[in-house]
Amino acid sequence: MAYIPSPELEARVLAGDTRAIARLLTRAENDAAEARVTLDSMFAHAGRAHVVGITGVPGSGKSTLVAKLAAKVRKSGRRIAIVAIDPSSPFSGGAILGDRIRMGELAGDPGVFVRSMATRGALGGLAKGTLELVDVLDAAGFEMVVIETVGVGQDEVEVARAAHTTVVVSAPGLGDDIQAIKAGILEIADVHVVSKCDRPDANRTVVDLKTMLALGYTHMDTEKLKLAASIERQVPDIIATSSMKDQGIAELLAAIDRHREALERTGDIEMRRAAIAERRLLAAAEGLMHDAFERQRPGKVAPLLERLRVRALSPHTAALQLLRELKFGGDA
Amino acid sequence: MAYIPSPELEARVLAGDTRAIARLLTRAENDAAEARVTLDSMFAHAGRAHVVGITGVPGSGKSTLVAKLAAKVRKSGRRIAIVAIDPSSPFSGGAILGDRIRMGELAGDPGVFVRSMATRGALGGLAKGTLELVDVLDAAGFEMVVIETVGVGQDEVEVARAAHTTVVVSAPGLGDDIQAIKAGILEIADVHVVSKCDRPDANRTVVDLKTMLALGYTHMDTEKLKLAASIERQVPDIIATSSMKDQGIAELLAAIDRHREALERTGDIEMRRAAIAERRLLAAAEGLMHDAFERQRPGKVAPLLERLRVRALSPHTAALQLLRELKFGGDA
Repeated sequence: MAYIPSPELEARVLAGDTRAIARLLTRAENDAAEARVTLDSMFAHAGRAHVVGITGVPGSGKSTLVAKLAAKVRKSGRRIAIVAIDPSSPFSGGAILGDRIRMGELAGDPGVFVRSMATRGALGGLAKGTLELVDVLDAAGFEMVVIETVGVGQDEVEVARAAHTTVVVSAPGLGDDIQAIKAGILEIADVHVVSKCDRPDANRTVVDLKTMLALGYTHMDTEKLKLAASIERQVPDIIATSSMKDQGIAELLAAIDRHREALERTGDIEMRRAAIAERRLLAAAEGLMHDAFERQRPGKVAPLLERLRVRALSPHTAALQLLRELKFGGDA
Repeated sequence: MAYIPSPELEARVLAGDTRAIARLLTRAENDAAEARVTLDSMFAHAGRAHVVGITGVPGSGKSTLVAKLAAKVRKSGRRIAIVAIDPSSPFSGGAILGDRIRMGELAGDPGVFVRSMATRGALGGLAKGTLELVDVLDAAGFEMVVIETVGVGQDEVEVARAAHTTVVVSAPGLGDDIQAIKAGILEIADVHVVSKCDRPDANRTVVDLKTMLALGYTHMDTEKLKLAASIERQVPDIIATSSMKDQGIAELLAAIDRHREALERTGDIEMRRAAIAERRLLAAAEGLMHDAFERQRPGKVAPLLERLRVRALSPHTAALQLLRELKFGGDA
């Protein structure tokens, strides 16, 4: 059955109607195939928002920071949307463990929109779903769209990188295990934050971070190196913040804005857009593959699974056969 | 150019020759396509090892626990291999931050084999690569193969589940952010560990865990529910351990062995094998798709990326076209 898009709903989303946005997002989450035409139309309308990925290890205080940042963005006259795919975020799963809603003054402000994504069970769909959600919010006219993810796990880090500006949050006083993981995500940062700078050991964290960054340029990935070569400000800003004392938040917003301006001024924004396009193409292809797998499970998939189970075929050989036999987007 | 498999290397790996194993793994990591025939042959020879996934949030002490468990497995006369894809593991990236090698008494024991996997940059390849590595170690005759992953992030959790027995490690005294993430992985456990039980607050963690498990059965995923329905011991064991005091480790090994025995006795092992086969097929298909994407980038991929970048195509439409046009395994 053909999907009948709702021009009326689309128009209301494009006009920034919060209830229409929420309804479209729910429809997309329940059945992305049904909402496909609308989602694709939203993509065509998107492209103006400043997409900011904010990531950090558990305990880095990034959720509170995001709420504080949202307040500053509002004071600058911009509308902001937050997509939380951090299971520890007060905006998503974390809230079940107790009262941790930190939105405070932002509650009820129509210029702030918050949406949480489930990270578990979104097999092959996390990145695709998140970025489609960002499209809708972008098309709806939010000047800034923040993607908040926990900085552990491949998919989560990938999503945070699919942004114009990626902020990595560090904090003083975390355990060794967490520090080691943190080291792995430092290289994706356009802007660094050391949160909880009201703590006495925060200054050491800033110094340590500077040292790691000075050493770490050898570990930078190719894309960032290319960008770094042309951006005048090669070493990312390090901003010390305290959500508790409301310090450094304006500086953080300024650094985020400065990064976007530098991308525009140097023309590097086009390289960033190309990199994001690539991530999205791969994410969408993975999503389609999983869809086709599920839809054709009784027909083409089951016999392959059985031969794989008894080791008559290797995963590689079975997968090759699968990809050649699956029909993709069969309902298109 | 056709790959010439080395029957001599294969024979030595199958005989459990540690240096041959290390060489094959390095070859596979450097160029999986070159080692393909050998890896597929290893898969055909594998299937005897007890594959154990051990996962837990950062700071849960799972790396130390794994080392202690390895010592107990050795004392039981079995050989054990450990694949660490935890960036905080002393076996992988963590070591760069200081001396954290905790293998202690196991160093130099040929019955213990440790291999670390890079988690970053393994785009689309983490699960596939890890499980192929497990095949090699399984074929080489290790009776137990442990996959150690950090329990945050979709891919990492998926890998830990691609095991016969999944152990989830909790610890007392972690922060709220981490506890919230932990809640999301409890449901994948066949065996629970509360580590650091020498701490005074450990007993509360055990009680909390029991409470969460009692509540949490509503959140179990379908596969586990099906398994739980037929396994007599429906509620997973909770084992309190102290790596420092060497307590509970024998009990943990007993619980792991008991779980495997129950799978065999009830015949549920076949359901588990089918689930693992499915995960592996999907992981291999994703890997092949990424390979094809990279190989055909100049030809078929680049024009799609360009149209996507200028929003003339949506990610969904571009991905559909991509999947229909890519040639998979072109060098086969």
